[in-house]
Amino acid sequence: MTPEDEVLTACAVALAERDVVTDPDILGSYLRDRSTGSAAGVPFAVVFPRSTDQVAAVMSAAHRHRVPVVPRGAGSGLSGGSNAIDGSLIVCLERMRSVLLVNEVDGYVETQPGVLNTELREHVRGHGLWYAPDPASKDFCSIGGNVNTNAGGLCCVKYGVTREAVLGLEVVLADGRVTRLGRRTIKGVAGYDLAGLMVGSEGTLGIVTMARLRLRPMPPPPTTSVAVFGDVGTAGRAVSAIMAELTPSMLELMDQQTIAAVEAWQPMGLDVTTAALLVAQTDAPHGAAAADADRLLQICEDHGALECHRSDDPAESDLLLGARRLAIPAMEALGDWLLDDVGVPRSRLAEAMVRFQDIAARRDVRICTFGHAGDGNLHPTIITPRGDREAGARALLAFDDILDVALDMGGTVTGEHGIGTLKRRALARELDAPAIDLHSRIKQAWDPEGILNPGKALPRW
Amino acid sequence: MTPEDEVLTACAVALAERDVVTDPDILGSYLRDRSTGSAAGVPFAVVFPRSTDQVAAVMSAAHRHRVPVVPRGAGSGLSGGSNAIDGSLIVCLERMRSVLLVNEVDGYVETQPGVLNTELREHVRGHGLWYAPDPASKDFCSIGGNVNTNAGGLCCVKYGVTREAVLGLEVVLADGRVTRLGRRTIKGVAGYDLAGLMVGSEGTLGIVTMARLRLRPMPPPPTTSVAVFGDVGTAGRAVSAIMAELTPSMLELMDQQTIAAVEAWQPMGLDVTTAALLVAQTDAPHGAAAADADRLLQICEDHGALECHRSDDPAESDLLLGARRLAIPAMEALGDWLLDDVGVPRSRLAEAMVRFQDIAARRDVRICTFGHAGDGNLHPTIITPRGDREAGARALLAFDDILDVALDMGGTVTGEHGIGTLKRRALARELDAPAIDLHSRIKQAWDPEGILNPGKALPRW
Repeated sequence: MTPEDEVLTACAVALAERDVVTDPDILGSYLRDRSTGSAAGVPFAVVFPRSTDQVAAVMSAAHRHRVPVVPRGAGSGLSGGSNAIDGSLIVCLERMRSVLLVNEVDGYVETQPGVLNTELREHVRGHGLWYAPDPASKDFCSIGGNVNTNAGGLCCVKYGVTREAVLGLEVVLADGRVTRLGRRTIKGVAGYDLAGLMVGSEGTLGIVTMARLRLRPMPPPPTTSVAVFGDVGTAGRAVSAIMAELTPSMLELMDQQTIAAVEAWQPMGLDVTTAALLVAQTDAPHGAAAADADRLLQICEDHGALECHRSDDPAESDLLLGARRLAIPAMEALGDWLLDDVGVPRSRLAEAMVRFQDIAARRDVRICTFGHAGDGNLHPTIITPRGDREAGARALLAFDDILDVALDMGGTVTGEHGIGTLKRRALARELDAPAIDLHSRIKQAWDPEGILNPGKALPRW
Repeated sequence: MTPEDEVLTACAVALAERDVVTDPDILGSYLRDRSTGSAAGVPFAVVFPRSTDQVAAVMSAAHRHRVPVVPRGAGSGLSGGSNAIDGSLIVCLERMRSVLLVNEVDGYVETQPGVLNTELREHVRGHGLWYAPDPASKDFCSIGGNVNTNAGGLCCVKYGVTREAVLGLEVVLADGRVTRLGRRTIKGVAGYDLAGLMVGSEGTLGIVTMARLRLRPMPPPPTTSVAVFGDVGTAGRAVSAIMAELTPSMLELMDQQTIAAVEAWQPMGLDVTTAALLVAQTDAPHGAAAADADRLLQICEDHGALECHRSDDPAESDLLLGARRLAIPAMEALGDWLLDDVGVPRSRLAEAMVRFQDIAARRDVRICTFGHAGDGNLHPTIITPRGDREAGARALLAFDDILDVALDMGGTVTGEHGIGTLKRRALARELDAPAIDLHSRIKQAWDPEGILNPGKALPRW
């Protein structure tokens, strides 16, 4: 038997028949994530384990026969991290979809990895508790993927990213052994922070089969504020001034190109000549959210905002947030899109946005920039005419130009989407030589056969 | 030449004469940290590098000649992590004591490791910014030690521990190579979280020569609240109820034994029959801190608190906080003390405190328990008559009994003080077999000669 047949035989023993799939038509749905511009190979099978033991059996067989494994959640990634590679076994966690327990008194939830972010949020809301990390994809991304990419979102500017929410993990290692990392308690310093090391490791160190996540009290109702700016420089300075004084629970930015895209897709009366729009929320308790919003908008006015609004009314807040919510669908409607994700020091937000427009002109593409301004995390999105391959090639060049700008500013090539296949070369430029070596050493130490998601996430390997 | 002589020669080349010390009288001051009950060996020298290059030169020589190195900051540790071992070179970072830069706009500071926590806090306060982590030892602990133990403190219940504040690190590796880990931006997911892996690694993976730490806006002035309880069960339930609804910036607890110790040492009118005292702070903006405090005390009353006070006045707040501040000096005054540090699920705080008193009775020692109730992080402190060796031996047994209780409750053997030499066996019980193996693999991969703080922090090695 070939190694692949050996692994399939082991999977057939450990998993139900319907959970081991080799039909190419079905495999076709599991080849890629949501990224554009990333390559994907041809796997020989996809398996859908329903328990930790089944994942362990699959990994044990893959390890014994040195067959590469691509772990996959809901496939909502944006860097190619869960794209198939040639000759691989896809281990898809979407059928491990149970919330295992909610501990209300100690404030945590234990969940299987296939549970969607929104499902988890709604489940724990039923217990009067809140799961903070809220990636824009929350309705269709899974917790396992959130852990593996250290997903961010809108409210992490105040409440932290996924890493801050992970208390503990159950992980199946490359050789099929099962371990529990982390803890139940809020604080703990026993040993190396291996749960933290797993967060953001993009399936290269193990397969997460359970996540124990910290929950918080439901936040007070937010006040939503909007400020309109005539140029990006004043908007950028307002962001820095806000963050030096206040702790908003959301601070989002859209540039003129994004505003125009939203207005073109769904007219809502936005002034398409506006250079930048800030959308903020504050959620301090006992009415202090409104006072914080007033102060936030005062700072915007002091920095030259042309218009300011705020609202405590949920329906009106939804309207104010609407433009930001529509950014991605509006850009998808414009043509082929390539979404980038960089982090820059907050002080250089405006400069970054100006340089992105220089890139757009040089590469003859359209770039819409929006993102999490309070964190300096921007999503410049490159738009080209649908199906225009030459323009698509220019888009890929612009994509790399954007990463160059981030690195040149002392920033990072990925704020929250991860390295996947798209940014390995860029990662090798962000890291120094000893750091690249340390990555290789950890990968070698934990996965000596190199079967876990090879060719992803790491500068070398 | 012996390996030790080779290393001394290399140090003499790289460092100033006054920074290489072999005088046994001076060495004597660098043998131990502040822990009691921990063993210490005899080093052959202590060196005081003043720059990253000097640390690199020292490590390069130590690596070449396979000489064990014990990194050391201010020596304020409580687990023996920086205690000397026989035949080791102590690399003391206390002369790398400069704050390198404060970036006000982007909200971070870069500092050398020898800067004391309080020095750093005061330095950045001069820029209108705040460094959150505030271990009780802040006046005499250094930032390098804070990073290496992932130090907690009082306000981390709201603002997170050291790990949440570390954006990036400069690290000298075991072989003398220098790397920069982490980032400048608030968010970033480029590669494994190696800066996070360094945090809490107790000098076993590298020597931190620069820490880039996140700063925050100065928090609003806090309101301080105190609630007195007739039994620990009601106090514990009040803590859980508070944390399910509010986000206090401090929530500390003292048991009857601690209250009695404080009152005996410095009479301040405390009722020494009180079973438990909660001291809380809230710091929401625009006056919401007082409203949060009212709600917090209402919860305490609903759970049976006998007395409640609150104050917005700084002087009166200091009085209310006084008892908590005096806990450690009051216990030191009672006799020989052995300070433990465990984390338990918040729901089991009261049960833990009852079981600690059972241990006190069984081992014929006195145990005073206080700690960070909001995080479930308790410091049971074992007191025995000064110089009584037999009682000291019973104290060590009680110390282990306390760790057993924490593990039995699904807690951790260290919430914030680290493993050091005191808790290696306990760590081996907290971790499962694969996790122990993963620790060894990382240590082996990063420090193959095993020269960095051998015999510390890890279950094996």
